[in-house]
Amino acid sequence: MNTHLKDQSFMKIALKLAMKGMSWTNPHPLVGAVIVKEEKIIGQGYHQRFGDDHAEADALNNSIGDIHGATLYVTLEPCHLPYDLHGVRIPCCEYIRRSGIKKVHIAMLDSNPEVSGRGKALLEKVGIPTTIGCMADEALELNETYHHFMTKGEPFVAATFSASLDGKIATRTGDSKWITNAQARNYARNLRSQYQAILVGINTVLKDDPHLGIRMKGKKDPLRIILDSTLKIPLTSRVLRNTNLLIATTKKANKEKIKALMDKGITVLTFTGQKIPLSNLLEELKKWKIISVLVEGGGSVLGSFLDARLVDKVYTFQAPIIIGGGKAVSAIAGEGVTTINEALRLKNVTFRRFADNLLTIGYTN
Amino acid sequence: MNTHLKDQSFMKIALKLAMKGMSWTNPHPLVGAVIVKEEKIIGQGYHQRFGDDHAEADALNNSIGDIHGATLYVTLEPCHLPYDLHGVRIPCCEYIRRSGIKKVHIAMLDSNPEVSGRGKALLEKVGIPTTIGCMADEALELNETYHHFMTKGEPFVAATFSASLDGKIATRTGDSKWITNAQARNYARNLRSQYQAILVGINTVLKDDPHLGIRMKGKKDPLRIILDSTLKIPLTSRVLRNTNLLIATTKKANKEKIKALMDKGITVLTFTGQKIPLSNLLEELKKWKIISVLVEGGGSVLGSFLDARLVDKVYTFQAPIIIGGGKAVSAIAGEGVTTINEALRLKNVTFRRFADNLLTIGYTN
Repeated sequence: MNTHLKDQSFMKIALKLAMKGMSWTNPHPLVGAVIVKEEKIIGQGYHQRFGDDHAEADALNNSIGDIHGATLYVTLEPCHLPYDLHGVRIPCCEYIRRSGIKKVHIAMLDSNPEVSGRGKALLEKVGIPTTIGCMADEALELNETYHHFMTKGEPFVAATFSASLDGKIATRTGDSKWITNAQARNYARNLRSQYQAILVGINTVLKDDPHLGIRMKGKKDPLRIILDSTLKIPLTSRVLRNTNLLIATTKKANKEKIKALMDKGITVLTFTGQKIPLSNLLEELKKWKIISVLVEGGGSVLGSFLDARLVDKVYTFQAPIIIGGGKAVSAIAGEGVTTINEALRLKNVTFRRFADNLLTIGYTN
Repeated sequence: MNTHLKDQSFMKIALKLAMKGMSWTNPHPLVGAVIVKEEKIIGQGYHQRFGDDHAEADALNNSIGDIHGATLYVTLEPCHLPYDLHGVRIPCCEYIRRSGIKKVHIAMLDSNPEVSGRGKALLEKVGIPTTIGCMADEALELNETYHHFMTKGEPFVAATFSASLDGKIATRTGDSKWITNAQARNYARNLRSQYQAILVGINTVLKDDPHLGIRMKGKKDPLRIILDSTLKIPLTSRVLRNTNLLIATTKKANKEKIKALMDKGITVLTFTGQKIPLSNLLEELKKWKIISVLVEGGGSVLGSFLDARLVDKVYTFQAPIIIGGGKAVSAIAGEGVTTINEALRLKNVTFRRFADNLLTIGYTN
């Protein structure tokens, strides 16, 4: 194996380690690190959850034997500033220097404009050579929501729905269970762990009374956001069982109900207009460092986000069934476009099969 | 290569030859034949068009050198009766016997109950051993419409549409050009050559004024069928440019217009009710030996066929675009089902990619 392929294979391990932090590190990125000496891995680590040790520190702390002269593979640029309010943890660059690491392979620079390039510069300044770009595409994809938030300054918004071949998400009588197969539904639920928040309209809550959790061991439930302009949510809704919840409403909401919800510890965000202004909502989420939102429906909510061109990524699950019916429920409502040329055209489209069900993934930019 | 693989490779060539008759042999099947002697092909043939020589005769007529002792590979059971009204052409079994062929590999028996098994029996009776089953699945698929017609006694009905990810075939203003890419559209047009007739509703004619032809050198246009219950078709429609056309209407149609169309040489089929009864229409088509129909839309026509459970195969072309809009045109209208369990579930689903466009193919039975 040549040097280049060896580097890639170690960086791949670091990327896999990074994945283990999925759902826990938000709004910080997923990062993995591997320490290699004489072609053997002597240390592994990852950023386990928000506030914990950074991946580099985790790997250094977990390493076995003499680190001196070893090489570090890390999926994101090491930090150059202390990352602990109490000053207990020193910057990764400094920690690396003290450890005796002699070379650092970095998959990509941090996209946070306030720190980008500074870690690399600091390492080189103290005499530790670095490379940038090993498995860079994979590293970028791994933290696409973080990089988007850092470079665009707004939450990354994904939309998802599960439909029949004819684009319906329910029959004319509203039946929707189940359109896709168990594998596809499982994957769809797992998707939630990749987003810091999930968002649905009140009709979804009223119709299905969903818990909106991941229900997977070792995964943190995302923040649930409910769009409920007139505050119709029943106080007995399953989604109210815990307070990791944000309800967006308008001045049409009953003030006593707002108070009752807030007394339960639930965050209620009241907008002044008749409708919930989606851009303003995202602006709020940005302030709270919510870097990513998965919009799950229903059709009107998806339509509003798509009409406003606020969606960055789309996941469409499709089962090979035909529901039919001029009055059946369409996957996307809202206003829609007037000409096909104006339609939202997905880019970098990939497909994933779940037996005879299909997932189409694409980006809007 | 073992004997079995050699047989398959020759039968594959016969299947490829059979394909060359596509669009021309209806209501007869596609058949190909290869004559092999000492492991070399000495003759090839296929059923070129309805009324022409059968594949076996074509191969024997085109063979080079001494056929005596050769082996015949044929994709369908040879006929045991004369197939020419004038008695010029002798049955293939007899022609094979006279030629000195010593063995016949048959991919599958004829599914026409009146002849199935008789050709094989006759060959064996005259001392020519036969095998059945080499590439049988491929042979069955090649003539799926013919076999369906012969065994079920009704035309094979396929439905096709091209939609966005959200199942729309036009925007809210009716724009529909183009949803799928050029490759997918080309494939969709080619599909027509696999069907003896294509069927659309009058709204498609009024909206797009299509020619509904294949526009491909070497392919015969299918019979065009228009469902037009009140006979709204403009006499200047492009589809009226030739008479290979059937218009189905009802008693609501203007009688003078019916006459005007018939004077042009166009077949007009008038049903007695207020609506065109699809089962009766298929019954008529059966009488005329129309073995297969491709229903191309629009949404109401597709909905009617699907509601009546008259569809045997579905082709869905899908582009990774989102049209959106609660008032956009859905791929399938009609009544639809009430529960997801009742939805039409496709079987033996296969996918085919055209860059980022996708074709899903499935069967209803």
